[in-house]
Amino acid sequence: MTYNYRLDIAYDGTNYSGWQIQPNAISIQELIQQALKTILKEEVFVIGSGRTDAGVHAKGQVAHFKCLQEIDLFRCLVSINGLLPKDIRVRQVRAVPLDFHAQRSAIGKTYWYHIYTERIHDPFRFRYSWQVYNMCNVDLLKEASKQFVGTHDFTSFANESHRGSAAIDPVRTIHSLNLVEEPGGIRLEFYADGFLYKMVRNIVGTLVEVASGKRDVEEIPALFAARDRRQAAQAAPPHGLFLMEVYY
Amino acid sequence: MTYNYRLDIAYDGTNYSGWQIQPNAISIQELIQQALKTILKEEVFVIGSGRTDAGVHAKGQVAHFKCLQEIDLFRCLVSINGLLPKDIRVRQVRAVPLDFHAQRSAIGKTYWYHIYTERIHDPFRFRYSWQVYNMCNVDLLKEASKQFVGTHDFTSFANESHRGSAAIDPVRTIHSLNLVEEPGGIRLEFYADGFLYKMVRNIVGTLVEVASGKRDVEEIPALFAARDRRQAAQAAPPHGLFLMEVYY
Repeated sequence: MTYNYRLDIAYDGTNYSGWQIQPNAISIQELIQQALKTILKEEVFVIGSGRTDAGVHAKGQVAHFKCLQEIDLFRCLVSINGLLPKDIRVRQVRAVPLDFHAQRSAIGKTYWYHIYTERIHDPFRFRYSWQVYNMCNVDLLKEASKQFVGTHDFTSFANESHRGSAAIDPVRTIHSLNLVEEPGGIRLEFYADGFLYKMVRNIVGTLVEVASGKRDVEEIPALFAARDRRQAAQAAPPHGLFLMEVYY
Repeated sequence: MTYNYRLDIAYDGTNYSGWQIQPNAISIQELIQQALKTILKEEVFVIGSGRTDAGVHAKGQVAHFKCLQEIDLFRCLVSINGLLPKDIRVRQVRAVPLDFHAQRSAIGKTYWYHIYTERIHDPFRFRYSWQVYNMCNVDLLKEASKQFVGTHDFTSFANESHRGSAAIDPVRTIHSLNLVEEPGGIRLEFYADGFLYKMVRNIVGTLVEVASGKRDVEEIPALFAARDRRQAAQAAPPHGLFLMEVYY
């Protein structure tokens, strides 16, 4: 018989090459798979809701794996956290129907991006926020961010993934993009039906260019229309980004 | 002429041997002194409000140093942060009267100690809190903590410092000790006129023994009376401790 299990995972991405397994680098996916193999004595393949890049963090990553045995959920939870490094924690292990797929069943995601706007960074937050000291026009940032809400072709804000993006529909719907002030800076809360590769970081890079006067708010519609990644700004750095929640 | 300057400093203590210079280890005091030497081209001696041990963090450490030149405060602030690693930040450089002494002029300090009470630790907080999963009797903790407030001889809760403790008056006044609930646990806010070596960690160790049923609340007066460090509990680990503020 085949069983299907869902994992809810949080990790500090600082020390990893990202979620996805790749040669000559330590990925979160690989560490979780290895731990499960040790526990279950069975080869499993762990599928995440999506990859996060090197340095990107997660508080609500979701993954699933199929195996040939029924698992004691609580023992698995304790064992896997005993095997994993402390900057990766499995928060929950759940039995799910066989058709649950962490990536394909997802109907939405929330990402947060933290921007630190003070001159002297907080030594406890430099790994978790992008310092943009000379920016600070939060009103412009707010105005620009409104233009990203709704259903758009996000080609100009998506990098090609390693898998090739030819077949991927570039239309996504950002349900909301909220600016929230927090000590020392702001965060941008993105809630969408899905995100293209590097989409949040590319949008944040462009928003910060607007907020710092390097680009006009009025240019944004033309950026969408261009359907050309090269016209938008550089991606914001990975360490400000958190995958907060995946919705099913 | 001699000038006196005050530094306000924050640091993540994870990667350091503590505040105080010691052989074959990287201390925060040493890194700051080296940076100042590079900037001022003059040997200076940086004196902190007190040492913090290896792994202890600070958001409000204060230090002073004397030198033979007048300093451009803003340039010094920018330069020193350019030279220091990102987990140590000087938040402010101020000119102070010659008689200002970071340690001797201090009239009080606030330390916070973070305890994480959930079974699965937060991957973003394991370096900044002590996980005490099986404790959880917060009422007992609160009751026990009240007995530490006020003026006491804290000999039973002080380790001997390297300098020898023979000459140190063991009487201190804890003005307040508040328990504050925070996500995943609690923090203990200690505000006192001063602290003996390892005093906060030794008190927290004893409080957690009470909260976890290993020791009775009623034993605490006898602990004070014994004036014997060996009778109280082991020190709580350093990584839950933050020096928050020094008062002058």
